[in-house]
Amino acid sequence: MGLLGAIEAGGTKFVCGIGTKDGKIKERISFPTTTPDETMAQVESFFTGQEIDAIGVGSFGPIDPIKSSPTYGCITTTPKPFWSQYNIVEFMKSKFNVPIGFDTDVNGAALGEHLWGAGQGLDSCIYVTVGTGIGAGAVVNGQMLHGLSHPEMGHIMVRRHPEDSYEGTCPYHADCLEGLAAGPAISHRWGLQGVELGKDHPAWEMEAYYLAQALMNYILILSPQKIIMGGGVMKQEQLFPLIHRELRSLLNGYVQHAAIDSDIEQYIVSPQLGDNAGLCGALALARLALDEV
Amino acid sequence: MGLLGAIEAGGTKFVCGIGTKDGKIKERISFPTTTPDETMAQVESFFTGQEIDAIGVGSFGPIDPIKSSPTYGCITTTPKPFWSQYNIVEFMKSKFNVPIGFDTDVNGAALGEHLWGAGQGLDSCIYVTVGTGIGAGAVVNGQMLHGLSHPEMGHIMVRRHPEDSYEGTCPYHADCLEGLAAGPAISHRWGLQGVELGKDHPAWEMEAYYLAQALMNYILILSPQKIIMGGGVMKQEQLFPLIHRELRSLLNGYVQHAAIDSDIEQYIVSPQLGDNAGLCGALALARLALDEV
Repeated sequence: MGLLGAIEAGGTKFVCGIGTKDGKIKERISFPTTTPDETMAQVESFFTGQEIDAIGVGSFGPIDPIKSSPTYGCITTTPKPFWSQYNIVEFMKSKFNVPIGFDTDVNGAALGEHLWGAGQGLDSCIYVTVGTGIGAGAVVNGQMLHGLSHPEMGHIMVRRHPEDSYEGTCPYHADCLEGLAAGPAISHRWGLQGVELGKDHPAWEMEAYYLAQALMNYILILSPQKIIMGGGVMKQEQLFPLIHRELRSLLNGYVQHAAIDSDIEQYIVSPQLGDNAGLCGALALARLALDEV
Repeated sequence: MGLLGAIEAGGTKFVCGIGTKDGKIKERISFPTTTPDETMAQVESFFTGQEIDAIGVGSFGPIDPIKSSPTYGCITTTPKPFWSQYNIVEFMKSKFNVPIGFDTDVNGAALGEHLWGAGQGLDSCIYVTVGTGIGAGAVVNGQMLHGLSHPEMGHIMVRRHPEDSYEGTCPYHADCLEGLAAGPAISHRWGLQGVELGKDHPAWEMEAYYLAQALMNYILILSPQKIIMGGGVMKQEQLFPLIHRELRSLLNGYVQHAAIDSDIEQYIVSPQLGDNAGLCGALALARLALDEV
């Protein structure tokens, strides 16, 4: 059975892997994200000589995932030094003569969960990551969501918690969702890393308030059939029941559906692919690239 | 050329029409929405004897548009007397032996604009109506957006304007978008109907603040290629430049795309089908129902 290559291109580290067409990871390697020259040389070295049919890249963003665009394949306006306007697809094509898939890490993760994880058998799902930043990808009618570009759901505006006076970390919007609820906001606000806060610290109620607001808006705008929440902050499993309760309180009976009324524990869930969600997402992008040839 | 029937089923009035498969309305009639018995008898009488190949119903909501659901075809939890749980598709099928299309009025309008109006040639667009209520429908990858159910974009949470102390009209959420920015909120807040307020009344700055926040969230979550804004409130054309300016200010350069940076007047527009957007939407639903046979 042919194998596929996968690159989870993160702002902090790159994970490269080899896997099967049904989503099983056989081999992986990880290294820090430094400069494009250095990091991509490590990527090249990992895949050189491997017998693979396609490679998928799930990348940090913003990126240009629109195939008809002149800048398709680029990481676009990142503040990360050296990576702005870097075309990762062009590099991969110059080195490997196989189809290259490319999308945001979170669109990839949504597709991976749709194919092999918590979103199997559904028409739609979203994958939300809450970690150093907040991002989300979506599958709608079985396809990854694109339009003008890709979703940037982490930067929506939210209403402030009445007891929160923290100014927010987002360089663009200060107190958008990411600015108030990503990992750095938690640690700056409370003076401790999330992992150092007790499970019953008031930080988690506030965090759930912001994340539930975001989910409310995602539900009212996209109506996904499943919401999958991963990333470092979501390792705090006490957040799930808090989010479930807060979301029901915010919606206040407006969306009447069993998924919310009685089955919310099965509606808003952890990635079924666990810590492989990102790498399997890139594998899913490779499979899609192969299917599209 | 075969003709199609269209029903724009609104909470205040029903509009029925006959049109062509390329979106031209040939004949129309309108009557107030009273009880289902009375109103649907008028619908039946209008279409009886007409030579039509399919009928589309674009309905006020919430509705159940999911074909596999046992309550498909129903208006679900409306507070409007007598209409809750009324199955409009079942009634139409019992009277007319043609395919019946059914969706929200705004999903229909998005499809109509996608086929024949401002969204032609694009993969995606959203249609937002701002009137007695606020609602929006979406076309994604050429198909109307469904998932758990249909979008309910009018009820997203927004951040309050610093000078607004109005409590909001929404019976579920008080001060969600619809509660603060639909027509009734404008008239209750200012003591005058929107049409009675001057073009430079501060009401419009506040209205633009709320609508731009909503569009920011729609863009960050759905990334539509075009935003079409109709409904009674959007007849106040001075709102468009105010919304354009406020949206750019809120996004603050985060989404870098020509549609927003330089062509925003062509990105956020009035319905190209004008006052026919709703009825043409229902016609588009009829065409879709015929295509799906």
